[in-house]
Amino acid sequence: MPEKEPLNIIKIGGNVLDDPAKLQAFLERFTVVEGKKMLVHGGGKIATQIGNQLQIESHYVGGRRITDAATLDLVTMVYGGLINKKLVAQLQALGCNALGLTGADANLMPATKRALKDGIDYGWAGDLKAADVNDTLLHTLLLNHLVPVFAPLTHNRQGQLLNTNADTVASALAVAMAKEYQVSLLYCFEKKGVLAQIEDEDSVIPEINQTNYEALKQSGKLFDGILPKIDNAFAAIRAGVYLVWIGQAEQVVVSAGGAPVGTKIMA
Amino acid sequence: MPEKEPLNIIKIGGNVLDDPAKLQAFLERFTVVEGKKMLVHGGGKIATQIGNQLQIESHYVGGRRITDAATLDLVTMVYGGLINKKLVAQLQALGCNALGLTGADANLMPATKRALKDGIDYGWAGDLKAADVNDTLLHTLLLNHLVPVFAPLTHNRQGQLLNTNADTVASALAVAMAKEYQVSLLYCFEKKGVLAQIEDEDSVIPEINQTNYEALKQSGKLFDGILPKIDNAFAAIRAGVYLVWIGQAEQVVVSAGGAPVGTKIMA
Repeated sequence: MPEKEPLNIIKIGGNVLDDPAKLQAFLERFTVVEGKKMLVHGGGKIATQIGNQLQIESHYVGGRRITDAATLDLVTMVYGGLINKKLVAQLQALGCNALGLTGADANLMPATKRALKDGIDYGWAGDLKAADVNDTLLHTLLLNHLVPVFAPLTHNRQGQLLNTNADTVASALAVAMAKEYQVSLLYCFEKKGVLAQIEDEDSVIPEINQTNYEALKQSGKLFDGILPKIDNAFAAIRAGVYLVWIGQAEQVVVSAGGAPVGTKIMA
Repeated sequence: MPEKEPLNIIKIGGNVLDDPAKLQAFLERFTVVEGKKMLVHGGGKIATQIGNQLQIESHYVGGRRITDAATLDLVTMVYGGLINKKLVAQLQALGCNALGLTGADANLMPATKRALKDGIDYGWAGDLKAADVNDTLLHTLLLNHLVPVFAPLTHNRQGQLLNTNADTVASALAVAMAKEYQVSLLYCFEKKGVLAQIEDEDSVIPEINQTNYEALKQSGKLFDGILPKIDNAFAAIRAGVYLVWIGQAEQVVVSAGGAPVGTKIMA
């Protein structure tokens, strides 16, 4: 079997987007990532600030924000417009041929409005399956040396935009593109990686695989909040993704010679 | 010389965007426009409303709005996010493979910050030249059956987004694409076309050419406000555009058998 071409899909969130110096450092690193790549971004404090100014009240159920019509307009403006287009302009200045996208554009990510769960209506929240991603057109864009930059919005094919978790968007894109590419999925978060001791910021576990994961879990030292991330990473790997990396945006290194900091999760 | 393939570039403004019924009627017509096409949209009342809610004050000099930093963020959110992505989702629902874009995306429309004019600083306003439009990539997108939908934003290649007049965006795209295509440029506005008598809404002049234009101007019956539009149309035609049409969005007909209402401006 011939080796597949590498593709890096990198997801950044509020902790990078809210800090101009960190963001610029990340974008410079992203620009020099070799080969084909995509960026997925979430939101940040700016969405909350603008929401407050527009007097859009946040409603939460069980810790999850309900996407009512006003909130959907807010995230369409802020994620799809302000954050996405500023990222594109900044990347273009660095020589990276970024193309800003949502899942509605070119029907790249058709999704389904989330069904009622335990009687809770999550509003205009979209659930996305990897099988529905339009990987053929994404492949064409990559062949044209474009770098897709995704805001976490999808649509239902019936004219309705949907708010979709950025981690889910990154994972669905990764699984969909794994048919054609050797996909590395990089999740940037606030820590340097998965920590062996939660109180020691430098105790980064360099690699987690199915063999050492059970032992790590049983040690009881892993931070509870990280377990769903690791479980999701293994789910992506089982679905064909080559590796999942968890670490800090400003530490992203994806070159043959680089020594990446962070945690690699592999089969 | 072999005939060039037709390309229709249609521009809509606030009078259509602000009226959901008119907008839906237009999008249905746009979807059935045969062959290759692009859409360019301006803003609408929603930008003013959101600007007011965010307490962004409008500053005007000589009737032209100054794009300060807050206004640029506002148009990036509203034009580039809210309006653009809603249009894309609505078109996708109609089966039109829309792709929302700004001039920063894929470096499609690099522009220049407007120089001081008579000592006036217009702020983050971008002047766009047809020669700078990335027609090669637009051609590739059209070949992939995509329908570009442009928000009136450009960038300066140095990381700065710029606010650009939507008529100018449409005209620059038309002139740039005229190298490869037989371009019809359709400007939708509030009247049925250029009126022979300003007080008679049905006195649409079906065709204006360089021969009858002088006589029309000397008749003194044309509305003064329409003259710059006609002059800009002739400028586009001299630069290679096949024809310019001025009329109402809900009257747009672009098919072999259709009898278009509105005014055609041709060499």
